[in-house]
Amino acid sequence: MPEQPHPCGPRYCDDCDRFSAWYRFTGDEAEARAKALDLCVEQTIEFPVDLLPEGFPATDVIGRLERLENGPGDAWWGLITFPMSDTGFEIPQILNMLYGNISLKPGIRLEMLKDCMRLWEKFKGPRFGQEGLRKQLGVPQRALLATAVKPMGLSAQELADRAYLFARGGIDLIKDDHGLANQPFATFEERVNRCASAVARANHDSGYHSLYVPNVTAPAGELERRAKFAKACGAGALLVAPGLVGFDTMRRLADDDEIGLPLLAHPSFLGSFSSHPEHGISHHVLYGQMMRLAGADASIYPHAGGRFTFSESDCHAIVAGCQVPMGGLEKIFPMPGGGMTLKRAEELRRFYGNEVIYLVGGDLFRNDPDVVKNCETFRRLLEK
Amino acid sequence: MPEQPHPCGPRYCDDCDRFSAWYRFTGDEAEARAKALDLCVEQTIEFPVDLLPEGFPATDVIGRLERLENGPGDAWWGLITFPMSDTGFEIPQILNMLYGNISLKPGIRLEMLKDCMRLWEKFKGPRFGQEGLRKQLGVPQRALLATAVKPMGLSAQELADRAYLFARGGIDLIKDDHGLANQPFATFEERVNRCASAVARANHDSGYHSLYVPNVTAPAGELERRAKFAKACGAGALLVAPGLVGFDTMRRLADDDEIGLPLLAHPSFLGSFSSHPEHGISHHVLYGQMMRLAGADASIYPHAGGRFTFSESDCHAIVAGCQVPMGGLEKIFPMPGGGMTLKRAEELRRFYGNEVIYLVGGDLFRNDPDVVKNCETFRRLLEK
Repeated sequence: MPEQPHPCGPRYCDDCDRFSAWYRFTGDEAEARAKALDLCVEQTIEFPVDLLPEGFPATDVIGRLERLENGPGDAWWGLITFPMSDTGFEIPQILNMLYGNISLKPGIRLEMLKDCMRLWEKFKGPRFGQEGLRKQLGVPQRALLATAVKPMGLSAQELADRAYLFARGGIDLIKDDHGLANQPFATFEERVNRCASAVARANHDSGYHSLYVPNVTAPAGELERRAKFAKACGAGALLVAPGLVGFDTMRRLADDDEIGLPLLAHPSFLGSFSSHPEHGISHHVLYGQMMRLAGADASIYPHAGGRFTFSESDCHAIVAGCQVPMGGLEKIFPMPGGGMTLKRAEELRRFYGNEVIYLVGGDLFRNDPDVVKNCETFRRLLEK
Repeated sequence: MPEQPHPCGPRYCDDCDRFSAWYRFTGDEAEARAKALDLCVEQTIEFPVDLLPEGFPATDVIGRLERLENGPGDAWWGLITFPMSDTGFEIPQILNMLYGNISLKPGIRLEMLKDCMRLWEKFKGPRFGQEGLRKQLGVPQRALLATAVKPMGLSAQELADRAYLFARGGIDLIKDDHGLANQPFATFEERVNRCASAVARANHDSGYHSLYVPNVTAPAGELERRAKFAKACGAGALLVAPGLVGFDTMRRLADDDEIGLPLLAHPSFLGSFSSHPEHGISHHVLYGQMMRLAGADASIYPHAGGRFTFSESDCHAIVAGCQVPMGGLEKIFPMPGGGMTLKRAEELRRFYGNEVIYLVGGDLFRNDPDVVKNCETFRRLLEK
């Protein structure tokens, strides 16, 4: 990543009316420049420049290529600034400007959003962030532990029985599997009611403060109702997949004072954006900066070496996206999962340190027949 | 595309409780089979099969590989069926099952949704479809014409002046550019009010029945309000970008009886899904079948040979996705744009025939200084 500051100032832009992003382009310098200049038009006026009417306020509306440099990966990186007012200060339009139409063109990857105080200050971002979530859990320092209640197909009571065991074992965040929606084998209301009760009972029995995190990814118009129902049942946080319901739907959930719960963001349906090194949206932006802007308190993603194929460098980029300065937006937790095992605990500690939520699934059933014991083992490994 | 019927019947599944999709896998037969079998688990229970509790109803919950064949592109194609009840009959969960977690794995492309009456019948789909939209416009047969009011940066009145000219020239659908949101230079309400009035005035003056189609892609919770405002102003249809707000948000808009307007779906932010031949979601599914399922009456996409890079075969696949049998869901219009020119009208007619909406932008300003005349020229070319 080229280390240049924002063109308008050392760290962020607090005195101009543009925001900026780094893009990576395929091709040689001339091709990269052509793509970058095309992007400036395509993502704003989307109109032939030679046909603009006389007196058109081009500099106030059209994107501008500020720098073009040979950067990491021996690729051409362009820093492009856009007029902030083009966004109307709305997230769907910010996404539209950053990667709307150009998602349909090849060889352009959105790599990094520069810090831009005057844009970010229009959004509340994460309601809790790292610090707030630690306070909710009463865990000031160690890495946090999470697991998922699954598999789909079990009854609500069977899922609740599992949630109870996880909570007895001291898992901090016990989330629904993201595939648990409102199926006949365990309807949303019965599942959430029983799981929330089970976790409350386990907390009472154990003295831990585990939070139950139901999945509220749901049809439009239904999501808020489920979130409120979950809160009334005693849910301690909510799981949502912005790829399935829209980033701004998550933002709205985060902003809702009546709900006011921490949000864990699931990456379902988002993989195509980050799967191609020469196209799409970088891990840094997609699973880090965008999740924060849209109000997530933690961003779930598959850690390197599990069932999925993110690299260690992808994971580092996500951690950075969760924590780099973004105006006043809180830092959020990276939440690696996707095939984590107890055997890897040491390796994970070295990689992530303490500012992380580990998401372990099936492996909590694998080592000892006693699930509670497996949970305690994992927790002990991280407290060492 | 392998021509096999649904495993449960000749055309669609009307007597079983599974739905099905074709996927394409990279690698040799063994690798493809391993990917397909992994998908069956990953997209449903997401849990180690060897750790399932005794008596778990696996066949009622887990995906199943029905066929694996060497298909088009000399690739391995797998037909996978999923239990319908896993979906809870909700679109976010259908997307989650079809391409949620596996979007994060390489070498798997969702190619085609098989017709599945019992799933599709749970959804209303397009409120108008091809036939309904033709009735709204009073155009029984010829290809339809559309253009976009732009560029962003013009005032609401300047945009309305352009809308007036387009309507005077007999353009059927005059949509906002998808980048027009709620910017200070032309706020949503002022723009929609002025443009709707301008088109109504032009219709009165000309005798045509042009519809004004404002962009209601907006923050969560705000979209319905804008749609209702637009309707009250006299908008004849609405533009929405499901990639920016979520497919199910579009479905909700389509289902809303109080709004009840045709929807044009814009592909902004969706390109990463369809940009890789070995990953993502096919043009057929993404811009065809999914748009229909989620209630669009027309699907906008860039035609081959314009500013973008869809191939002719991609465009054929979209047309098919807009029209193949999907239970009782209406057929919808393909709406090719992205750099269409009057010079290509003949070629386009040969490619698409009449069941299409042509979207022409900047070129309506390019041929003759008189915009109305250019519109009329285009219309005449299609009426020949």
